[in-house]
Amino acid sequence: MASNEFDLIARYFEHQNVNRRDVALSIGDDCALLNVPAGSQLAVSTDSLVAGTHFLPDADPALVAHKALASNLSDLAAMGATPAWVSLALTLPTPDEDWLRPFCQGFFALADYYNVQLVGGDTTKGPMSITITVHGFVPQGEALTRSGAQSGDWIYVTGNLGDSAAGLALLLGEKTVSDPQLRATLLDRHYKAQPRILAGQALRGIASAALDISDGLISDLGHILKRSGLAANIEVDKLPLSPELRLFETVVDKALQLALGSGEEYELCFTVPEQNRGAIDTTLAHCGVKATCIGQLRPGRGISLSRGDQKLDWQLHGYDHFAE
Amino acid sequence: MASNEFDLIARYFEHQNVNRRDVALSIGDDCALLNVPAGSQLAVSTDSLVAGTHFLPDADPALVAHKALASNLSDLAAMGATPAWVSLALTLPTPDEDWLRPFCQGFFALADYYNVQLVGGDTTKGPMSITITVHGFVPQGEALTRSGAQSGDWIYVTGNLGDSAAGLALLLGEKTVSDPQLRATLLDRHYKAQPRILAGQALRGIASAALDISDGLISDLGHILKRSGLAANIEVDKLPLSPELRLFETVVDKALQLALGSGEEYELCFTVPEQNRGAIDTTLAHCGVKATCIGQLRPGRGISLSRGDQKLDWQLHGYDHFAE
Repeated sequence: MASNEFDLIARYFEHQNVNRRDVALSIGDDCALLNVPAGSQLAVSTDSLVAGTHFLPDADPALVAHKALASNLSDLAAMGATPAWVSLALTLPTPDEDWLRPFCQGFFALADYYNVQLVGGDTTKGPMSITITVHGFVPQGEALTRSGAQSGDWIYVTGNLGDSAAGLALLLGEKTVSDPQLRATLLDRHYKAQPRILAGQALRGIASAALDISDGLISDLGHILKRSGLAANIEVDKLPLSPELRLFETVVDKALQLALGSGEEYELCFTVPEQNRGAIDTTLAHCGVKATCIGQLRPGRGISLSRGDQKLDWQLHGYDHFAE
Repeated sequence: MASNEFDLIARYFEHQNVNRRDVALSIGDDCALLNVPAGSQLAVSTDSLVAGTHFLPDADPALVAHKALASNLSDLAAMGATPAWVSLALTLPTPDEDWLRPFCQGFFALADYYNVQLVGGDTTKGPMSITITVHGFVPQGEALTRSGAQSGDWIYVTGNLGDSAAGLALLLGEKTVSDPQLRATLLDRHYKAQPRILAGQALRGIASAALDISDGLISDLGHILKRSGLAANIEVDKLPLSPELRLFETVVDKALQLALGSGEEYELCFTVPEQNRGAIDTTLAHCGVKATCIGQLRPGRGISLSRGDQKLDWQLHGYDHFAE
């Protein structure tokens, strides 16, 4: 069995289905050499997943790979960018082929789907962690950013919210459900989020601001508000909940609170000026993605929650890696 | 004291001196948005440093930062690329400001020197590690790669070899020297290698192949040989040794063996066709970098060592993170 760094890299990472014409030189030299199309800007994002912090050390390696890459692709989606290339820095305690094989399967399954080529990386010895840097293109000046929202713009989210938190609660044993199918579905929603690449691209020219929900709606929407100097009101009964979440949590207010705080959803949260609202449904229908209007931006600071005319005083916290 | 992820990132990483005009959007959104100059290819490299594997956990954070960034910039140097942008993924057990402050000082001192802008990254909780992705530009088609060498080409290295290994031996307590100044110099050589950016750029159009010496000359030269399908002979007495290395190791053959295996040198090893030899000295003199011819490529496989007409049978190994 080969056990040195170079053999490992060669065996597991040099073989892939995607061979992009814009990659002049891929894995195996000091750098990758890449061609960015004329008229496009390069969008770059980096995320780390650490065993014990972001995933359980005994988690299915294929699911860990999916999550690691999906969370990065989701950042490209939030900019309206088209994914192109990825670098993978993998730290492992031992060169365990029984771990590497399914990890690579999960990684390349998602990379292939989005025509993303692995162009470089590093394999090192140490406590298990995965750092991924993704590169994508966006037409010059058309990227969706976190700033740019105006008072009066409507707040939308794609898909449903809360399923990822429900799946995580099941995974951690904090809660149980009797239906094994329900459990499997919610675990899948937690592990196998699909980055909203097509939706992000479709929203260029329509949304005034956008980001992906990685830390929870409340926490992430806060970034748009901070950048725009605005406040937001969310009508909680408009939050899109899946049928599975309603089975998981039958108390509706608790389900809504899950939806507000659920991290690692990788749905997009975006704002839309009044005059562009008509374009949303038709545009996103082409991508097979639903979008729900959940509130509106207004002058001021912070996020308020309402039910009809009633203000709600629910206490919610965003996700914070270093918080106790 | 602020202790959440966002505050940490904001405080330590949003303030920097470099503000490049090709950065349309930097830290703080889902992605950075970057403009690659027309006519240039993008060169990208990723490296991880893990505490306990690549540096001692109690090492000076400023030196760790220098080493982490320098090793990545060295990959750009080896392609003949001009550095532009960097992403930093930092994993820390706790948000320790006494560690972060000197780390950032060391990081930005080097980044500023090469006009490199930090454009993104991630801060996560876990065992200490640093993953850096650097981006640079190289004129279309002019990059120095590991392939392209021909039989008969001469093998060169920049600077001196062996000092990094000597510094590491002192650091690990494997060896001692009585002169504190000598110790300080060799430790500095280990920790504070300067990436050969200008030399790499100067070698475009002159060298037939190039790489940087990160795993040791023998191991790294092997990559060029493998790509080119060639063998190499090294005349060991031509290896450039510093006066400090000769003081550290007075047995000359042992000093030469250190030079052959010393990793993390971040000197360039490159090959030059006969007709370009004349250009080397004048070109590199402009950069203030010396280059030494240490051998020649020939048909065959592997690396042989010689002293005059005599073949040497020294047993040498390259550096391998996973090897026992």
